[in-house]
Amino acid sequence: MILHIATFRWKDDVTEADVADLTEALLDMASRIGEIRSYTAGPNLHLRPGGADYGVAALVDDAAGLDAYLDHPEHKAVYDRLLGRMIAERTAVQLPLAEGSFA
Amino acid sequence: MILHIATFRWKDDVTEADVADLTEALLDMASRIGEIRSYTAGPNLHLRPGGADYGVAALVDDAAGLDAYLDHPEHKAVYDRLLGRMIAERTAVQLPLAEGSFA
Repeated sequence: MILHIATFRWKDDVTEADVADLTEALLDMASRIGEIRSYTAGPNLHLRPGGADYGVAALVDDAAGLDAYLDHPEHKAVYDRLLGRMIAERTAVQLPLAEGSFA
Repeated sequence: MILHIATFRWKDDVTEADVADLTEALLDMASRIGEIRSYTAGPNLHLRPGGADYGVAALVDDAAGLDAYLDHPEHKAVYDRLLGRMIAERTAVQLPLAEGSFA
């Protein structure tokens, strides 16, 4: 399996309402993309100093599943409506994960 | 539970041997820190364009568990020996996660 993680730093004009809207849209999107096995998205809890503003973690079966998710029209719709205009910086990493190893 | 994710961009002089050494050291460390429920670390598979060089994902019970992990002498030892001199940029995010929701 593949664990896809992404962190985001927002532009200065991004509001809490934007972020709440984004989280609702992403979780709704994830629930309707079959290739996504597990998903979470939300603002950084900031339990440690520094850090980014927002994070996403998604579990998919393989590279094809990752493409299906990231290229999905529902994902593009969230990007076009919200995410695209919010991002100042984004980082992402894909890591291999043995099934059932992360729970 | 808390999902802690971190992404790293390496300095230009970091070698593949450094990265392999780091991954072995981190996985060994994680196996000996009781507060870490699940853990993975490794170089970005680069299944999509761009992205960071390396990622870590760790699952802990709560904020105290996160502190126990990140402030652990074993973690500090890996930082002092390898990680500290490798990092050009680091981002990190903590997200809440319902138990059993990510598997």
